Amino acid sequence: MIKFDLSLFYPKSQKTGLPPGTMVYTGNQPQKPVKITVIDYDENGITERTAESTEDCFAFKETTTRTWINVDGVNDISIVEKLGHAYQLHPLILEDIVHIGQRPKMEEYDSYVYLVLKMLQFNPADGQIEVEQVSLVLFPHCLITFQEDKEGDVFEQVRQRIRSGKGRIRKMGCDYLAYALIDAIVDHYFIILEAMGEKIEHLEGEILYATDKQTLPKLHHTRHQLSLLRKSVWPLREMIGVLERSESPLFKKATRPFLRDLYDHTIQIVDTIESFREVVSGMLDLNLSMLSTRMNEVMKVLTIIATIFIPLGFVAGVFGMNFDHMPELAWRWAYPVGFWGLIVLLILGMLYVFRRNKWF
Amino acid sequence: MIKFDLSLFYPKSQKTGLPPGTMVYTGNQPQKPVKITVIDYDENGITERTAESTEDCFAFKETTTRTWINVDGVNDISIVEKLGHAYQLHPLILEDIVHIGQRPKMEEYDSYVYLVLKMLQFNPADGQIEVEQVSLVLFPHCLITFQEDKEGDVFEQVRQRIRSGKGRIRKMGCDYLAYALIDAIVDHYFIILEAMGEKIEHLEGEILYATDKQTLPKLHHTRHQLSLLRKSVWPLREMIGVLERSESPLFKKATRPFLRDLYDHTIQIVDTIESFREVVSGMLDLNLSMLSTRMNEVMKVLTIIATIFIPLGFVAGVFGMNFDHMPELAWRWAYPVGFWGLIVLLILGMLYVFRRNKWF
Amino acid sequence: MIKFDLSLFYPKSQKTGLPPGTMVYTGNQPQKPVKITVIDYDENGITERTAESTEDCFAFKETTTRTWINVDGVNDISIVEKLGHAYQLHPLILEDIVHIGQRPKMEEYDSYVYLVLKMLQFNPADGQIEVEQVSLVLFPHCLITFQEDKEGDVFEQVRQRIRSGKGRIRKMGCDYLAYALIDAIVDHYFIILEAMGEKIEHLEGEILYATDKQTLPKLHHTRHQLSLLRKSVWPLREMIGVLERSESPLFKKATRPFLRDLYDHTIQIVDTIESFREVVSGMLDLNLSMLSTRMNEVMKVLTIIATIFIPLGFVAGVFGMNFDHMPELAWRWAYPVGFWGLIVLLILGMLYVFRRNKWF
Amino acid sequence: MIKFDLSLFYPKSQKTGLPPGTMVYTGNQPQKPVKITVIDYDENGITERTAESTEDCFAFKETTTRTWINVDGVNDISIVEKLGHAYQLHPLILEDIVHIGQRPKMEEYDSYVYLVLKMLQFNPADGQIEVEQVSLVLFPHCLITFQEDKEGDVFEQVRQRIRSGKGRIRKMGCDYLAYALIDAIVDHYFIILEAMGEKIEHLEGEILYATDKQTLPKLHHTRHQLSLLRKSVWPLREMIGVLERSESPLFKKATRPFLRDLYDHTIQIVDTIESFREVVSGMLDLNLSMLSTRMNEVMKVLTIIATIFIPLGFVAGVFGMNFDHMPELAWRWAYPVGFWGLIVLLILGMLYVFRRNKWF
Amino acid sequence: MIKFDLSLFYPKSQKTGLPPGTMVYTGNQPQKPVKITVIDYDENGITERTAESTEDCFAFKETTTRTWINVDGVNDISIVEKLGHAYQLHPLILEDIVHIGQRPKMEEYDSYVYLVLKMLQFNPADGQIEVEQVSLVLFPHCLITFQEDKEGDVFEQVRQRIRSGKGRIRKMGCDYLAYALIDAIVDHYFIILEAMGEKIEHLEGEILYATDKQTLPKLHHTRHQLSLLRKSVWPLREMIGVLERSESPLFKKATRPFLRDLYDHTIQIVDTIESFREVVSGMLDLNLSMLSTRMNEVMKVLTIIATIFIPLGFVAGVFGMNFDHMPELAWRWAYPVGFWGLIVLLILGMLYVFRRNKWF
Repeated sequence: MIKFDLSLFYPKSQKTGLPPGTMVYTGNQPQKPVKITVIDYDENGITERTAESTEDCFAFKETTTRTWINVDGVNDISIVEKLGHAYQLHPLILEDIVHIGQRPKMEEYDSYVYLVLKMLQFNPADGQIEVEQVSLVLFPHCLITFQEDKEGDVFEQVRQRIRSGKGRIRKMGCDYLAYALIDAIVDHYFIILEAMGEKIEHLEGEILYATDKQTLPKLHHTRHQLSLLRKSVWPLREMIGVLERSESPLFKKATRPFLRDLYDHTIQIVDTIESFREVVSGMLDLNLSMLSTRMNEVMKVLTIIATIFIPLGFVAGVFGMNFDHMPELAWRWAYPVGFWGLIVLLILGMLYVFRRNKWF
Repeated sequence: MIKFDLSLFYPKSQKTGLPPGTMVYTGNQPQKPVKITVIDYDENGITERTAESTEDCFAFKETTTRTWINVDGVNDISIVEKLGHAYQLHPLILEDIVHIGQRPKMEEYDSYVYLVLKMLQFNPADGQIEVEQVSLVLFPHCLITFQEDKEGDVFEQVRQRIRSGKGRIRKMGCDYLAYALIDAIVDHYFIILEAMGEKIEHLEGEILYATDKQTLPKLHHTRHQLSLLRKSVWPLREMIGVLERSESPLFKKATRPFLRDLYDHTIQIVDTIESFREVVSGMLDLNLSMLSTRMNEVMKVLTIIATIFIPLGFVAGVFGMNFDHMPELAWRWAYPVGFWGLIVLLILGMLYVFRRNKWF
Repeated sequence: MIKFDLSLFYPKSQKTGLPPGTMVYTGNQPQKPVKITVIDYDENGITERTAESTEDCFAFKETTTRTWINVDGVNDISIVEKLGHAYQLHPLILEDIVHIGQRPKMEEYDSYVYLVLKMLQFNPADGQIEVEQVSLVLFPHCLITFQEDKEGDVFEQVRQRIRSGKGRIRKMGCDYLAYALIDAIVDHYFIILEAMGEKIEHLEGEILYATDKQTLPKLHHTRHQLSLLRKSVWPLREMIGVLERSESPLFKKATRPFLRDLYDHTIQIVDTIESFREVVSGMLDLNLSMLSTRMNEVMKVLTIIATIFIPLGFVAGVFGMNFDHMPELAWRWAYPVGFWGLIVLLILGMLYVFRRNKWF
Repeated sequence: MIKFDLSLFYPKSQKTGLPPGTMVYTGNQPQKPVKITVIDYDENGITERTAESTEDCFAFKETTTRTWINVDGVNDISIVEKLGHAYQLHPLILEDIVHIGQRPKMEEYDSYVYLVLKMLQFNPADGQIEVEQVSLVLFPHCLITFQEDKEGDVFEQVRQRIRSGKGRIRKMGCDYLAYALIDAIVDHYFIILEAMGEKIEHLEGEILYATDKQTLPKLHHTRHQLSLLRKSVWPLREMIGVLERSESPLFKKATRPFLRDLYDHTIQIVDTIESFREVVSGMLDLNLSMLSTRMNEVMKVLTIIATIFIPLGFVAGVFGMNFDHMPELAWRWAYPVGFWGLIVLLILGMLYVFRRNKWF
Repeated sequence: MIKFDLSLFYPKSQKTGLPPGTMVYTGNQPQKPVKITVIDYDENGITERTAESTEDCFAFKETTTRTWINVDGVNDISIVEKLGHAYQLHPLILEDIVHIGQRPKMEEYDSYVYLVLKMLQFNPADGQIEVEQVSLVLFPHCLITFQEDKEGDVFEQVRQRIRSGKGRIRKMGCDYLAYALIDAIVDHYFIILEAMGEKIEHLEGEILYATDKQTLPKLHHTRHQLSLLRKSVWPLREMIGVLERSESPLFKKATRPFLRDLYDHTIQIVDTIESFREVVSGMLDLNLSMLSTRMNEVMKVLTIIATIFIPLGFVAGVFGMNFDHMPELAWRWAYPVGFWGLIVLLILGMLYVFRRNKWF
């Protein structure tokens, strides 16, 4: 069973009443220590290190190489704040980074671009969907990423590609790095789609028999999950559309085709979810229709049986009466010929009427 | 139970037939005295006073400090009129300020901007939603706000922030003050959403049993409330969208990111309401489907019992007839073997047919 | 009961086959005499007269004062034609003026603007809605209005305002006069909305009992009426939107805010109708759901009674059989202990099964 | 009964695999001879003749008078081809002219405009709707029209107007002629709408009784027809919208107001169809609801009768048993007082329960 | 039965985690050898050959004649890669060519245009729909097409037209060739539409009797197929719309009218599918309504029979009781007159009540 934790899709209101720009961590992992890793690379080489403190990152600030600062865990507000001040981020951005439950969006500022989106990870072990908020701040020579520190790291494959130096990632700028990370996140949506697809196919098999009382709630549940997924993908698509059409000089011409490709992927995700929704809605309709067809049939059987036997019962009842003067009772062939003949005639007449009305 | 007072969402028609610009108070608190407070502040200091008369406010008219004139209660038309004339407000604005039931909107005039919106306040004590109309008129160095004088004051927190002098509110202009007030109003919508969310979760638990006849009306009622909430939030979102995109010189560049943030919040509110609606609609569908599944089951039981026992009843009736010549009645094993054998055969036959048709 | 005369919403086809520009009166009051009134005014004075012939109006043609020519009744085509020629109106406009059933629209010509809209008047006496077509032709110094001559005159209040000389109407141009007349028409929609609102509230009370067979048709009828109202308001809103955004020099800057206000009113009307529709649809759904819940209950009672008593009836039937050899019949306690014990056991067993399946 | 020939709404695929521009006649009247009529007119005079061959038309090619060449029947491809070459029409246009089943559209070429639309004609005799494809090619001084040669000719009235010389048709150019022809076609849609309207009103009467089994299929059939009509009108509206907004120099300023008027007519047609659809959908809903209300009632009667008499039957069965020891049978007042008293008590108890549950 | 292989509509996720631009073949025909054919032609002549290796194609690279390189089978990645490098295609294009399951799209690059779409082929033998991905890369003097190597080749007819030298294909550029190929693909959709149309007509016949239990699932199945077809046609239409409006200099003015024609075809396909969907939805509604009408009827018969005979059975049961003192049993005319009279009276009374309630 695939499970969605609804509460992760919507922001908490515990900040109500605070002035804008106030940083309040609203995730549910307040205890974990924050881990900062810095990867500095260009076409020729790569330096990778785990920063002990935020000050460690500042060393790379003035270099012309590409610097990727990854912050794992946003529960320690002071760290985010220090980084924010060093890189002159707007207070509202710092607020959004730690305020879990943001709607995916892209915001362009004078010297940097802020991107926030949701990483969905499917845990096949327990069918759980994990939602993790990822923030990216893109500068000309630097990319800072913030993620909640959950199990699994979808960025690892990108890190490997940088280390190996193969492909074009080391040759291109930070904008391509940002693209590569978002692409890795979007790719994970396809895995969830596949799991949903399998579940739907399984339900399709079940529906043909329609005997299981649980099919209906399961279908409703699946439709509900697809609604949630859709609600979470639409703003993603929108945000990547904004990203693709953005004229920010931070995204260079060479990266543009990749952004277009990324946008195509999100359209495919949306398309697939819409198809799934239509399929599940169709299955719900079919299931309900078949329930009512079955009901119809059951009712017909009841009606046929009752319509035949209730009158017959009356006839038998008549001849079971105890009137003193019922001359037919005394007739020799009354029972074998009269009674049974009447019964057979009644049954044949009924069957004829039913048949004419196309009841069976 | 959360209660909405419908009549507050729509304007009264008691003004029909009057010339445009005629000021008629249409709220339901005509008696309360009007209270005017003036806060004049800049980065260095703050003056706060309760104005005895409208003339008290004019003292601040020519200063370059920021002046916030807050009018609590719009039932005294003469006060609104005097202020309006002093600040040269358009007659249509004065009419809208006192005409409760306005659709949230923003109107730009040559030297000021008029904003009207609805403040929704949730009273957890009695589950009542209070709707209060708030008007803001923004000048370069002055902000005038008009609110109906109801219980609770959502502006108090903003006042505190001005008094304390912390944060950026004292450093920025009246446009930021207007933003801060609207933000305080929008934040209160999240509290109502949370109350609705809890109610829906509670109903979700109830629905699994579907035995309560009250579940259906409750679901319909909740859907109805969400419709109302939606109707009240859509124009708000629209208005804040207009505000964000507005090119009025009254809103300075430094305030713009905050307006964008505000707009994001209203989108999140709309998104959440839409999700709630979808969830409740899904629950309604599920509830109805489960009712009809249950009905189906009940009908099947009736049919099985009736289909088995009505023919059996006929058989018993036959042997209860009083014909003189019914030779089988006299046979020694007629009752224990013949009759009961026939009964058992009939039952087994029926069960076989039912089983083959997958009735149970 | 509020009644709509459908035929008034759509144009008659009796003109099919005639060349465009042919004037055919398609209303249903061909006999009434046409009445022309002329009001000529400026800030300083007012001249009011009833014109004997169309020529009487031409006197005001060259003046710089504002002239309002109101034609009551459009059944006399020659009058409309003469006026049209004198003021050089396009033949298509003349055709539309007399061709009742026009869709509200605004058309800009070189030297004038043509506006046509529908006036809805609610007659509380018989619940009838009267639909009247009103045409306005606005010149720089002159406004010509054409209305069908029905009972009641919504323009009278505007006339009073001109006569009294209070307010701004005498100070402003003919564009403001046109606005004032349209505003008077739009105001009347709110009265109809209020009548509909009361009707809906009344139905809301009825629905809670759901015993009245008439509730369903009534709800359908109300939804139908709201559809009609909506169909009639949407083009009005559209037309006033066009009017507001129009860049025609005939509408001066001072009148613009009033047009914006007028547009806000039509949006509120549309909003309210949409809300009403949603409420009524929700009531229909609820009513149907409650019907099927009731049905469910009735069926359960039938099933419980039938399922208990049909088998019992069979048992009684068995012991009413006339077999010669039914030893149990002779047993001393067969009836009081055996039979009634069996009956009680059967009933208890059934009740246990029903209870376990949560049937009651 | 109004009948639509569906196959006429969609193009045949018999052309699949042929190169574009191949002319294949796909109508169903391949045998009829083609008739070409030429009307050449200006303000002063008119020449009308039936062309023996396509070459006859070419005589008018260089004149400055307006020439209208009407081709009745498009089954003879060679004729269309010759005309096409003489007037230098694009091969794709020639293909579309003979390929019945085109979607209404307007295509602008360098020196001419191509218009194709569907003429719907209602035959009141047999209720049949005839669909005929009409193509218009407009040159500065010439209009060529192609129509399938079916019964009835909607262009005759326009021809009469040219012959009579009244009105403005002789004074204006070929663009006005094209407008007049399209207007004649659009006018015929109103006649079909009126026939549909009468049918719907008739069904509205039927629905109130809801006893006729045919009402439901009839309503579905009507909704289906309205869907077809809508599908056929939408592209027409779109095409006339394109025509109205077109900046082609072929349409002169004097003709523009007429095109706008034409567009208004198509909007009214679309509006009316949408209203009809809503009315019919509402009737379907109401009919279904009333069916289920009736079902509910029938079920209640069944349940009341069965619930009362099945237990009574059991009681009678009990006293019909043949146990040797049933002391109550011997009691003097057992039958008149005991039995009938029990029966009356049972009935009264049942009725009380039913009444309390508001079953009747 | 028309069968759609769903998996072909959506891309496989087996590429998740790979860097963008990685070429992975995701079709299901990995073994077939790839076949490359080259056709080089201009107005005067044609050279046709099967290329042994990719290098064979390069010979035509510098010519000014039109070159069409067709690659049958995209499973051999090295071939696609070599061609891609020779013609300097963007890595993302190469990835899309071999990654089966692309959404139809058009991408413009500096010196070429990339088009990908889906060819649907209907196999009437087994009712199977085959989906094949086709990629086109258009250069000024060269067109490269890639198709999966499936049975049947829709391009053969275009090849024939080039060979024969008839029509305009040899006279026009590669843009026309690209158009001709896409047109051939789009034409095949009409064949599928016709097959669907016949199926729907067949179902329309079935529905009138509504006795077949399979009708409902069949209708649902057809609606589902139409949804799939729609999902596959919408992006095609969108892509051809982009193609038509594209301002790429690669598409010359002479080809433009053909692109417009192509776009009209896709609109007709979409229109027809929408009509089919509406028809099938209407049939589903009608079928369900008729099921419930039938159910209603069946219930009425049951109710009439039961309501008449259950009371009669009770009466017969009463006179079958064995009370010692039932004086009526001894009356001479009790049975023939009393009993049967009572029965007849009861039946007539019931029938009267039923008739008054319009039950039959």
